[in-house]
Amino acid sequence: MTHSTETARQFSRANAERFHQELFEMLRIPSLSGDPAHAADVRRMAEWLAAHMQALGLDKVAVMPTAGHPVVYGEWLGAGPDKPTVLVYGHYDVVPASLEDGWNTPPFEPAVKDGKVYARGATDDKGQLFIHVKALESYLQTGAAPVNVKFLLEGEEEVSSPNLRPFIEAHLDLLRSNVCVISDSSMRAIEEPAITHSLRGMTYVEMEVHGPSDDLHSGFFGGAVHNPALALVEILGKLYNTDNTIAVPGFYDDVVALTPEERAMIAKTALNDDQLKEATGVPAVWGDANFTIRERVSARPTLDINGMWSGWSGPGPKTIIPSKAGAKISSRLVANQDPHKVFEQLKQYIESIAPPTVSVDVRLLTTGEPALIPFDLPEMQAAARAYEKAWGAKPVFTRGGGSIPIVADFVKLMHIPVVMMGYGLDSDGLHAANEHYSLEMFQRGIETAIVYLDELAQL
Amino acid sequence: MTHSTETARQFSRANAERFHQELFEMLRIPSLSGDPAHAADVRRMAEWLAAHMQALGLDKVAVMPTAGHPVVYGEWLGAGPDKPTVLVYGHYDVVPASLEDGWNTPPFEPAVKDGKVYARGATDDKGQLFIHVKALESYLQTGAAPVNVKFLLEGEEEVSSPNLRPFIEAHLDLLRSNVCVISDSSMRAIEEPAITHSLRGMTYVEMEVHGPSDDLHSGFFGGAVHNPALALVEILGKLYNTDNTIAVPGFYDDVVALTPEERAMIAKTALNDDQLKEATGVPAVWGDANFTIRERVSARPTLDINGMWSGWSGPGPKTIIPSKAGAKISSRLVANQDPHKVFEQLKQYIESIAPPTVSVDVRLLTTGEPALIPFDLPEMQAAARAYEKAWGAKPVFTRGGGSIPIVADFVKLMHIPVVMMGYGLDSDGLHAANEHYSLEMFQRGIETAIVYLDELAQL
Repeated sequence: MTHSTETARQFSRANAERFHQELFEMLRIPSLSGDPAHAADVRRMAEWLAAHMQALGLDKVAVMPTAGHPVVYGEWLGAGPDKPTVLVYGHYDVVPASLEDGWNTPPFEPAVKDGKVYARGATDDKGQLFIHVKALESYLQTGAAPVNVKFLLEGEEEVSSPNLRPFIEAHLDLLRSNVCVISDSSMRAIEEPAITHSLRGMTYVEMEVHGPSDDLHSGFFGGAVHNPALALVEILGKLYNTDNTIAVPGFYDDVVALTPEERAMIAKTALNDDQLKEATGVPAVWGDANFTIRERVSARPTLDINGMWSGWSGPGPKTIIPSKAGAKISSRLVANQDPHKVFEQLKQYIESIAPPTVSVDVRLLTTGEPALIPFDLPEMQAAARAYEKAWGAKPVFTRGGGSIPIVADFVKLMHIPVVMMGYGLDSDGLHAANEHYSLEMFQRGIETAIVYLDELAQL
Repeated sequence: MTHSTETARQFSRANAERFHQELFEMLRIPSLSGDPAHAADVRRMAEWLAAHMQALGLDKVAVMPTAGHPVVYGEWLGAGPDKPTVLVYGHYDVVPASLEDGWNTPPFEPAVKDGKVYARGATDDKGQLFIHVKALESYLQTGAAPVNVKFLLEGEEEVSSPNLRPFIEAHLDLLRSNVCVISDSSMRAIEEPAITHSLRGMTYVEMEVHGPSDDLHSGFFGGAVHNPALALVEILGKLYNTDNTIAVPGFYDDVVALTPEERAMIAKTALNDDQLKEATGVPAVWGDANFTIRERVSARPTLDINGMWSGWSGPGPKTIIPSKAGAKISSRLVANQDPHKVFEQLKQYIESIAPPTVSVDVRLLTTGEPALIPFDLPEMQAAARAYEKAWGAKPVFTRGGGSIPIVADFVKLMHIPVVMMGYGLDSDGLHAANEHYSLEMFQRGIETAIVYLDELAQL
């Protein structure tokens, strides 16, 4: 069998409408990995993907167990042992979504409007992982692929992949490859494709402040009991300094200072105040004034309150002193920061500032290592050529602000480069209401993925 | 017809078991006035009470409309125009309750254990209002009552009685009486009955901080956008001074200083640190060190966070910057403070300290006037004698920390004294999980109410 990149690209265009319908099928499955109530949906999503890949003619497909949600594995080795093998990583799980969060359409019923499909997971990461499945299909249905392809699709990325590293360690032979490709990031505009060469790590913490053993009547005990919501507020208010730097002692100790060259490269995708306000709807920009906006959102560590709860939040008044108050807090980390060390710093600091009128419990939810990949590697440069040929524009190398915790693990455990070819747009609204994905991006992504396999075959 | 206080008391003892079953019927109706989803239950509760009083032989019973939940009115005027008329005020609505809040038994399925009935509303105020219904029944079933009795039972006390004042103004003739009795407060121990002569008022506010138009991915915007939860924390952290006094400018301006005599009377029911810790389960006492614990919880104004919400509070991590964060805040006010003035002070202060990186919305939910009643009035002293004869102990006159917003209105509109004979215990857990009411208190309450009617007839 031979392969023709051009014939494969034509096949993908001729079958675009069917590809869309298949993507919509995926988007209808609410595969929320963080919510035990949706465990069966996560499994259903894995089985759908396995059945789909089986039907495409892959050599081997399996839904493989982990201590949590399963991994979907698939391989096509028809290019032969003298050709490189590409490992495609993606994730089929999603974060929660419900109409009350402000969705215009039900989040698990894909709706197409102005060339975009609106659904949870559309861009993160179902649409992007499906690009690689459809790229391989386009080769297989018109001949053969130029390289061997393996798929490693996990169902726990949104809960920081607690079981993927053990899975990789246990299956190093099965997964052996020459390069890993991940499409789970985004570009600023369709004509500005980007290859991500850095990702932030994460330390995600949940804390709770406990005061009285039960909710109290505020009329009977107000004034003599430290309100746990107030105590939480006092603690959280000390996480930041007044210059918007993080107040946790030692937090910045391991951060490597950016070189002037690095700052210059980051400046190529500069974000100004108006662009940030336009993108987010905030009335004013905020942050550490010693760094540019783009540096703050990609190359500097952060600390955010992701959630907060206490007492009564239903309609009308309820005159209680809540018995407890809690918060979810997470820190995005940059290269050389250790997520576990940051957790210890955060925990010790919170415990040290907690008043004696309440008790405080701080626990680790998840961690993820930061990653930084050299962009002069041949596999990275091959990706740049694929964008020029198929996407129609030369890519920039950027730092991603988000976290794909497993990227650092791929590099460490498999000793292969990880090439992050993100086919999303920064404005896709991932993790938010009305997440969507451009069907034009989807098509251009498939064709770029087709060409990239050919470029890798020629290295 | 004649009346015999002793015969009526015997009747109440002989019928105690039936009285309990009737109370349990009331407690099964989830008459939550603050939740629109329960409007039909509130109405069902009103109709149950009206039907019950009708069956007891009152002259006139009616479920009367207001702009909100209805008032249940009932009257028995058989004592004749030369006898005093007593107006009994009570409320048949309750605050929310659900098993997840920590109830050991379903909150709307009364469970009796160790002589106490556990249910939402058991002590606040269904059990206490029913005492007066059963006291009148005990007279009517054994002859006649010594005074005329009118009932005014409302369904909106827990949402600060927005429609009761207009109702009283519109029905001053119907309600005309010589004294108003309210049982909606509590004593410290069963052998220490208390007559409440002061209540705190209230200003209840809801505020929300708005940042980005939608939740944002914390990896893409963390570090450059002011997290609304953090902004809320920064604002709420400035409501108090470091000495635990309230930082809202002007807040204490109208508070009348306590006299040494008043402080001495308050000291009769002193609360020490250990008692407060025992009653609430807090690890340490908190508050303004210039006042005793009892003063802080009854004679001084307070400010409490009653609820707080932002972003993700479900299981597992979710890496968002929330688009908004909110809080419910309420202040307990003492005599001479104006709830609307306090609202303006609070609103202006919050707006003045809100950073320009977010927008803030502060709105008034409810208000209630504080009240202070002289305790040397004949109707107050008659109540003291009723406790000595029927309860078996001399009462103390105390200041209540809670709010019964309508008390100030009764005094102003009807020019009658309001006698607050609370038949609850401080430890009943009202507004909290596992609210309960002692059936012995219920019985002693009925007998004290019977004797009080006789004492009033002799004034």
